Amino acid sequence: MSSIFGHNIKISVFGQSHSDAIGVTVDGLPAGEVIDPVDLRAFMARRAPGQGAYSTTRKEPDLPEFLSGVLESEDGTLVTCGAPLTASIRNTHTRSSDYAKLKDCPRPGHADYTAEIRYGGHQDVRGGGHFSGRLTAPLCIAGGICLQILTRRGITVGAHIYSVGEVSDTPYAPLIDSPALLQKTAAGFPVLDEVAGKAMLSLIEECRKEGDSIGGVIECAAIGVPAGIGSPMFDGVENRLAQAIFGIPAVKGVEFGAGFAASRLRGSQNNDDYYMDGDRVKTRTNTAGGILGGITSGAPLLFRAAFKPTPSIYRQQQTVSLSGGCDTPLTIEGRHDPCIVPRAVPVVEAVTATVLLDMMLEG
Amino acid sequence: MSSIFGHNIKISVFGQSHSDAIGVTVDGLPAGEVIDPVDLRAFMARRAPGQGAYSTTRKEPDLPEFLSGVLESEDGTLVTCGAPLTASIRNTHTRSSDYAKLKDCPRPGHADYTAEIRYGGHQDVRGGGHFSGRLTAPLCIAGGICLQILTRRGITVGAHIYSVGEVSDTPYAPLIDSPALLQKTAAGFPVLDEVAGKAMLSLIEECRKEGDSIGGVIECAAIGVPAGIGSPMFDGVENRLAQAIFGIPAVKGVEFGAGFAASRLRGSQNNDDYYMDGDRVKTRTNTAGGILGGITSGAPLLFRAAFKPTPSIYRQQQTVSLSGGCDTPLTIEGRHDPCIVPRAVPVVEAVTATVLLDMMLEG
Amino acid sequence: MSSIFGHNIKISVFGQSHSDAIGVTVDGLPAGEVIDPVDLRAFMARRAPGQGAYSTTRKEPDLPEFLSGVLESEDGTLVTCGAPLTASIRNTHTRSSDYAKLKDCPRPGHADYTAEIRYGGHQDVRGGGHFSGRLTAPLCIAGGICLQILTRRGITVGAHIYSVGEVSDTPYAPLIDSPALLQKTAAGFPVLDEVAGKAMLSLIEECRKEGDSIGGVIECAAIGVPAGIGSPMFDGVENRLAQAIFGIPAVKGVEFGAGFAASRLRGSQNNDDYYMDGDRVKTRTNTAGGILGGITSGAPLLFRAAFKPTPSIYRQQQTVSLSGGCDTPLTIEGRHDPCIVPRAVPVVEAVTATVLLDMMLEG
Amino acid sequence: MSSIFGHNIKISVFGQSHSDAIGVTVDGLPAGEVIDPVDLRAFMARRAPGQGAYSTTRKEPDLPEFLSGVLESEDGTLVTCGAPLTASIRNTHTRSSDYAKLKDCPRPGHADYTAEIRYGGHQDVRGGGHFSGRLTAPLCIAGGICLQILTRRGITVGAHIYSVGEVSDTPYAPLIDSPALLQKTAAGFPVLDEVAGKAMLSLIEECRKEGDSIGGVIECAAIGVPAGIGSPMFDGVENRLAQAIFGIPAVKGVEFGAGFAASRLRGSQNNDDYYMDGDRVKTRTNTAGGILGGITSGAPLLFRAAFKPTPSIYRQQQTVSLSGGCDTPLTIEGRHDPCIVPRAVPVVEAVTATVLLDMMLEG
Repeated sequence: MSSIFGHNIKISVFGQSHSDAIGVTVDGLPAGEVIDPVDLRAFMARRAPGQGAYSTTRKEPDLPEFLSGVLESEDGTLVTCGAPLTASIRNTHTRSSDYAKLKDCPRPGHADYTAEIRYGGHQDVRGGGHFSGRLTAPLCIAGGICLQILTRRGITVGAHIYSVGEVSDTPYAPLIDSPALLQKTAAGFPVLDEVAGKAMLSLIEECRKEGDSIGGVIECAAIGVPAGIGSPMFDGVENRLAQAIFGIPAVKGVEFGAGFAASRLRGSQNNDDYYMDGDRVKTRTNTAGGILGGITSGAPLLFRAAFKPTPSIYRQQQTVSLSGGCDTPLTIEGRHDPCIVPRAVPVVEAVTATVLLDMMLEG
Repeated sequence: MSSIFGHNIKISVFGQSHSDAIGVTVDGLPAGEVIDPVDLRAFMARRAPGQGAYSTTRKEPDLPEFLSGVLESEDGTLVTCGAPLTASIRNTHTRSSDYAKLKDCPRPGHADYTAEIRYGGHQDVRGGGHFSGRLTAPLCIAGGICLQILTRRGITVGAHIYSVGEVSDTPYAPLIDSPALLQKTAAGFPVLDEVAGKAMLSLIEECRKEGDSIGGVIECAAIGVPAGIGSPMFDGVENRLAQAIFGIPAVKGVEFGAGFAASRLRGSQNNDDYYMDGDRVKTRTNTAGGILGGITSGAPLLFRAAFKPTPSIYRQQQTVSLSGGCDTPLTIEGRHDPCIVPRAVPVVEAVTATVLLDMMLEG
Repeated sequence: MSSIFGHNIKISVFGQSHSDAIGVTVDGLPAGEVIDPVDLRAFMARRAPGQGAYSTTRKEPDLPEFLSGVLESEDGTLVTCGAPLTASIRNTHTRSSDYAKLKDCPRPGHADYTAEIRYGGHQDVRGGGHFSGRLTAPLCIAGGICLQILTRRGITVGAHIYSVGEVSDTPYAPLIDSPALLQKTAAGFPVLDEVAGKAMLSLIEECRKEGDSIGGVIECAAIGVPAGIGSPMFDGVENRLAQAIFGIPAVKGVEFGAGFAASRLRGSQNNDDYYMDGDRVKTRTNTAGGILGGITSGAPLLFRAAFKPTPSIYRQQQTVSLSGGCDTPLTIEGRHDPCIVPRAVPVVEAVTATVLLDMMLEG
Repeated sequence: MSSIFGHNIKISVFGQSHSDAIGVTVDGLPAGEVIDPVDLRAFMARRAPGQGAYSTTRKEPDLPEFLSGVLESEDGTLVTCGAPLTASIRNTHTRSSDYAKLKDCPRPGHADYTAEIRYGGHQDVRGGGHFSGRLTAPLCIAGGICLQILTRRGITVGAHIYSVGEVSDTPYAPLIDSPALLQKTAAGFPVLDEVAGKAMLSLIEECRKEGDSIGGVIECAAIGVPAGIGSPMFDGVENRLAQAIFGIPAVKGVEFGAGFAASRLRGSQNNDDYYMDGDRVKTRTNTAGGILGGITSGAPLLFRAAFKPTPSIYRQQQTVSLSGGCDTPLTIEGRHDPCIVPRAVPVVEAVTATVLLDMMLEG
């Protein structure tokens, strides 16, 4: 068990930070779906490193090569053929020597120690191995394709940085209905409020200078999702999305609609009253985040995911030598994002799209 | 898809609020495990209604009848035999007339409307049908059994009310290591701080008088869990626990360790430094909640779940008549908890135990 | 893992031969489907014991009680409500004393010994426990419901005894297109050719007199199945049907279309040529049994399952005493079918219907 | 759903006959397992084409490239690291023009027509696409690795040609206990009896000259499998092996132990009597094929799979033009095995090893 997810669309993610390649197999995509590679490349570029002061300076072109599952059209687009789609990305800019001593001295906040126990010392420690944030690139391949398919079905998925540290962006309106607003964050720093964005960038830069890092929250919405998707009790949209979103490294919390804030509300405040808008049933508020009983209501799907700060920091930390059985200080080198939240925004969109398309195909 | 969960131990929950019975099949329990029915009954009593002002006055003895999967010992205990264990609870105190008009006028905050769309009007609306909080009783049967098994493996699971509305209990220490403290909430109102408990009860009573309801947060911990349980990316402890916990009605958020608060921390604050305690690797803090890369570290497993306020309130609300296609006011009758959080505490323990045991059996 | 099967429709079978009850949960049935209980009872009666000289004289009314998942209509029919459907059958006529010494002396041909190893001696040995042929009754509940649903979708499933020992019935024509012929075996001894049926009954009676038993083959067909159901490589109709059919106790072989005989054919004999029948693509032969590449072609689905002879025979056999570590003769008492094949015919139909409906709901 | 299989070890097969690459992801392999690439290459060579008159003359080196999941040792072996292992094979010798008109005129006996319906005309028809026998190469990668792991656990899996057309090899003794005998077929034409092998080769050559093809049966055995593997009802060894074996193209039947022949036996003939061999429980016969109630008994696991004749023959056949809606003759060109059975022998071993290792890891 581990890196396979889904029911009707199953994604199987493979690769380590420094293996020959990373990639994903997407099994169960409907046949005949067009994939625009230019659009996919643009989507993946949002996740790629090297975009600004907040991200690592490593260059990863991260262009996926399609090994199977598609046929090429005359216009250069790809069309799914019903067979499992596999796309891979070569790992070329790996500098494994940076990580040589990690095998003995687990980095705090990383999976080094737990992987050591889980895999009996046989895990690939280079760059975090299969636990590396680099594995979100394959998620973006799968999700980028699903996003294109959902768009053709009238569904728009978007996300933005809700907060970095204590700096907050304008939240989505709970009843957000503008695809354009959801897509706004696809260009530039992914916030709605530019002033907030600048403050976030300042905070990230400050952390970088201090050899430290900072966490944040991403908010994601999907509009156009038909009512009636999902099932009680364990296959509701919340269950399935939560399971998948926790697959993104560094996520430590997921909440839907009002989420944790709902715990402080009265029922009279939290219930979303219904009304007729012409012949459509709507709600005047959306504390439910578009989901009741695990099933979509037709209101915007809305959730947030909390990301912990990047565990790789340059300040000296305390760890242990597993071979020596003694305490030891640790200083990490290499290149690391002081805040991974900006680059995680398209990853959250990707995972959300994958889950939604899977659930919409449910019999 | 819907009410089946798990890999090595699969639970299949069945029943509606007013069907002949509710229950659960637990497939994959190890054979030869002793089930103490007295202990199980005591555990289930913590979830049962009618315990105080905060809960409905309906009487539900909710004693499970074991239909299969166990053999009786001479000392009255039951022993699992390897075959699927099924236990059911008869629904006897049902007053279906209370719910007659709900079919037409969906209650805000309930799954009435989404179920109507999902099941084309064929859903069982009586008492919320399969979406009813009553379906947490079968979860407690399965989880109560798993708790007994985990105890014999040196693992203690406990939970308490972290907050009701704005009133907070003392949180668990992140490095909690006292089984007794975890089990403290098994008796009486499930808080650590009695003063906080009284304030919660006052708040709940206030809501009850106002015909309103209130939400809350439950914190759960497990100690004694060995390091090395779980797998990246989608079968980590966070993924699997989150999927399951969102199966409890009214949960709108789940966070592990520092959770959402981690988003406001620096890496230097959030990373849990390692040190040697004799020959054991330990951490001095536990913002990770005992999980790194989806895999347990041996530190206490710690998470919180946010519950929205009970959607059933006695104040007039606005809804629609599906048949009439028009707006209509709605006043709900019947008996409902003004706050379900106290009774949900053992349910969170139950689900956690089920997931943990399942994951510990992983090959 | 064990007694749960399916993707979109999941069945979870529970019970032992002598537990309080046996039954099944069917999760994922479409809502709004009518279940005619009279028809279901008639279907289950075909599996019930006590029908003739070939079956045990035990009386098992085996009437299922619906615990959940249905609503009653005014006309006495039941309608699925989308929630998991659970039906159980009480075990009333159990005589456990017959089986007391089986724990020590495993019966040849039964699962007594393998269960002893698998469950560490904790298995329920009474009447074969969860391995008992009695567990096919829940399969017939699930399958009987699915058959009713398939009928409304224009699909007819039928089976007959293909052979008992060396005595063969007329096989189905590979291109069988008569629903009436498929349903013919629902009344009386399930053969197409009455003369063959009489010869089978004579052979079974002969075995009974000799304290012996005899095996046989069941042939099953489904017509009206649309083309395009199933997926390569592991979720084809053959894969899924085979996995399920081997869940019926005593099945030791499954073959589709020409099956093992295809191994002796030339490609020019085995290929089913296509032709146009009006605007429909058809084949002139059907050695494929209606499946190519795991996907239905629209031709009749056709397969056979081989059943070994009932392992319970009255002749003295050789076994071991597990406690004594020595050889010992064994004489089985109790009531047992000298040939289970006649009663297994509806079971094969039931399992087939469950698998087909599941696969037709695939996204 | 489709090309993913397994519980604890999941394999995800990808690729089409003419896609850029084919391959497999194996998720869940234990960490620290050594893979000898020389041994793996030798195993895969047994499946490769171009070995004799019975196989196509295409050259496919089919050397797998490991993209992830392994670390290289200093001695050139590979060691699994716990991350999903992905290996791919480039498709280099593809001649797509041979298949241009197949889109319109489905080949009898192939999946062309059913894929057309299933995928709405978007399937990759070149070389049979994802349905091609070429996809058994990835199965051999996964299985070849599992075979090496099983060998270290004392388990030997072997297979041979049981029959081609009417020509039969010596069958395995039901109580076969010689690893050497099982491995004998790894070299040369995979039969036990060389005379029978020559007769088979003559028959295959005769078919080739006639532009025809021929089917056959493969028998497979595994010795050293511990007792107690597998679960009733749907996760027994028979269920899981059957589901997987039907994933090999052209398989139309699977039988365990005496299989279909058991249907003609009396219980007194078919039951395998037990006896004590020192302190081990053994059976004097093995009609059960080592499986009772889905669970292994410790006796040799024994089964057979029937392969239909290669559907690609050079004789003129009758098919339809889908675009023209009319009948049309068809003559297939290209290079095809007149009998795929010899090359399928290691594929059967591979699939068996994958299923066994998966089941042995069950909790």
